[in-house]
Amino acid sequence: MPTPAMISVEDARARILAGLRPMPAEIVALANAWNRVTAEPVLARLTQPPSDVSAMDGYALRAADGTLGATLKVIGAAPAGHPFAGQVGPGETVRLFTGSVVPKGADGILLQEDTDRDGDMATVKEAVVAGRHIRRAGQDFAHGDAVIPKGRKMTARDVGLAAAANHPWIAVHRKPRVAILATGDEIALPGEPIPPGGIVSSNSHALAALVRAMGGDPTVLPVAKDTTEAVAAAADQVMGYDLLVTTGGASVGDHDLVISGLQTRGLVVDFWQIAMRPGKPLLFGQMGAVPVLGLPGNPVSALVCAALFLLPALALMRGLPAGPPPTVTAVLGVAVRENDRRADHLRATVSTDEAGRLVVTPFPVQDSAMLRRLALADALILRAPHAPALPAGAEVAAIRLDTLGI
Amino acid sequence: MPTPAMISVEDARARILAGLRPMPAEIVALANAWNRVTAEPVLARLTQPPSDVSAMDGYALRAADGTLGATLKVIGAAPAGHPFAGQVGPGETVRLFTGSVVPKGADGILLQEDTDRDGDMATVKEAVVAGRHIRRAGQDFAHGDAVIPKGRKMTARDVGLAAAANHPWIAVHRKPRVAILATGDEIALPGEPIPPGGIVSSNSHALAALVRAMGGDPTVLPVAKDTTEAVAAAADQVMGYDLLVTTGGASVGDHDLVISGLQTRGLVVDFWQIAMRPGKPLLFGQMGAVPVLGLPGNPVSALVCAALFLLPALALMRGLPAGPPPTVTAVLGVAVRENDRRADHLRATVSTDEAGRLVVTPFPVQDSAMLRRLALADALILRAPHAPALPAGAEVAAIRLDTLGI
Repeated sequence: MPTPAMISVEDARARILAGLRPMPAEIVALANAWNRVTAEPVLARLTQPPSDVSAMDGYALRAADGTLGATLKVIGAAPAGHPFAGQVGPGETVRLFTGSVVPKGADGILLQEDTDRDGDMATVKEAVVAGRHIRRAGQDFAHGDAVIPKGRKMTARDVGLAAAANHPWIAVHRKPRVAILATGDEIALPGEPIPPGGIVSSNSHALAALVRAMGGDPTVLPVAKDTTEAVAAAADQVMGYDLLVTTGGASVGDHDLVISGLQTRGLVVDFWQIAMRPGKPLLFGQMGAVPVLGLPGNPVSALVCAALFLLPALALMRGLPAGPPPTVTAVLGVAVRENDRRADHLRATVSTDEAGRLVVTPFPVQDSAMLRRLALADALILRAPHAPALPAGAEVAAIRLDTLGI
Repeated sequence: MPTPAMISVEDARARILAGLRPMPAEIVALANAWNRVTAEPVLARLTQPPSDVSAMDGYALRAADGTLGATLKVIGAAPAGHPFAGQVGPGETVRLFTGSVVPKGADGILLQEDTDRDGDMATVKEAVVAGRHIRRAGQDFAHGDAVIPKGRKMTARDVGLAAAANHPWIAVHRKPRVAILATGDEIALPGEPIPPGGIVSSNSHALAALVRAMGGDPTVLPVAKDTTEAVAAAADQVMGYDLLVTTGGASVGDHDLVISGLQTRGLVVDFWQIAMRPGKPLLFGQMGAVPVLGLPGNPVSALVCAALFLLPALALMRGLPAGPPPTVTAVLGVAVRENDRRADHLRATVSTDEAGRLVVTPFPVQDSAMLRRLALADALILRAPHAPALPAGAEVAAIRLDTLGI
């Protein structure tokens, strides 16, 4: 295969997103709707509150009767859930509580603390204002209101709101099913015997956690040996998945093995060289109906590429807006050198200086094999191709790994 | 029961945290360790890399042989996972790849792009520097290193690191089991028949989602009717849980019913009045071995109290540092009035002004029955007891609900 030109991070992300689509809807119980993305607006099935209700503990009365010093007859009580069946007439009042339906005839609330109660008589200690302390029917929402829009990642508050709107079921985008395939003769699963010169597989498990963190449903496939046949056999297992993520294949050079193995099952390569560090090579293509994202085998490269490309991919697939990971502006803790033609993503710690500014300080060594340092990093400092050298204190853009939840 | 003095938000949180303890450890598979909190440090079970390895594709040789124009004999190849069994002698070289073990005898790497290969001969086009492009054994971590500390919420990167350190199992704090009990004659489950004057239960479901969001294991109990006996019967079901969260009971006034019901099963009340809005009354106590957090029945009050008290409680129980929810400094979008003796938590939207400052703008109406508005809120503006009136543009502290994940 001829080597195509390297493409930019931005182009690569746009081409990946263009090759994906949001998952169709499924119905989940409200109890399982947290963190899922709505596929339809949630329309209120009732009006809340359904009637005018009291906002306070006190007494319902005709406001005109609520003059200072007036005494009214208590003709009943209306705890929440037990509305008063009768009507409040002149000189009458009904005991009620926060949330109680305001009885017919009443248009004012006498607060409990403004009342002298003596047997079935109540005396007004503070004049009543008509309508005050009454929550009007529909104040929160009305029947048919779209209380939750389509495309919303459901918070705990949204779950409460959907419940209040009387929805036991919610239509959400199905979780993207992501198959994860690591390749390499040198790879052993954690706890299993490690071959000579081998290392323990870390990418599959980290990527599975990342897919789960981003609302996807990961499947870790058995590690494929470094042969075209082994990769092809693995490819036979992934039809029906929404995305295949591969990692590795670099031990025999730049993804050739993964590409050649998947090509036997119909892979059409969109691109596989990208001008970034850490991270080259990155593969994207389509194998029949299955999009394929090929990540580097190097653990740091794999995870940085996942943050830049797999996260937006999963966001799009689960029904959320997709784009670059959010960045913050921060100042450099130390000077950085000028950058070459490949976009760089410096692993960095985050702190706050005396002026309250966010400070990002890259680790002095940026070796892409240092997984421990990546785990300790709070942020990735973005360095564009050919970015100039910058002194300490200069402003840069950074992706906060800590708040991304990965 | 005599009415005790109201206590401050800070006192209440401190007393709640003092009544809780971290959950004991359990063992989970690495695949399930994401977002769990380590109960022990994760110690590396191997050294990474285990031997000196090449950082690049190229050729291993004695650096002294790597002079410009020298020609060496290629005596073998060492793909990753297939170390070269022999030794590199004078004038000899071995083909290797990123991650390949550097063979015995070699102390330099000739990069692939700096090599002219012709049959089994390789000519040096760029002089080799001893040790360059070699990743030393243990560069990432050494056997016995605590690569992940105790008390760390496992990120996807940490999962990868634990895998690389050869751990198939991780000791984490058990998830706190939280029983959630809503009370009220007027409460119906979503989709079920609603009694006259009734409303649909929203608190239980929102709280269950919040518990899950915060790494707990929620159980929603059947709604208890507004009788002491019903609450007592529910209490019999929660022995063995790590926390009981109640909501409601206010329809017959200030938690009396919940307190009296739970007291029949041994509840000892720590406090139940708190100087905050929305949120009074808030109950905390111990019922035998089960801590009890009683939240208001009002949905907005319940969720604001949950953010202020249940979140830190769950953090402590799952093994994380516990304290107030994190706050940000922001400027007010509009003026606010002076505050009374109760701490207030204004529901607000968040935006950014032209100067890049975070702006928080409270909703004009702060009715604690408006769940829809709470769901739309990005932040809670903190107003201390007796805080003075502030103009638009003044700095305030706010809790960001959007980044809390609730």
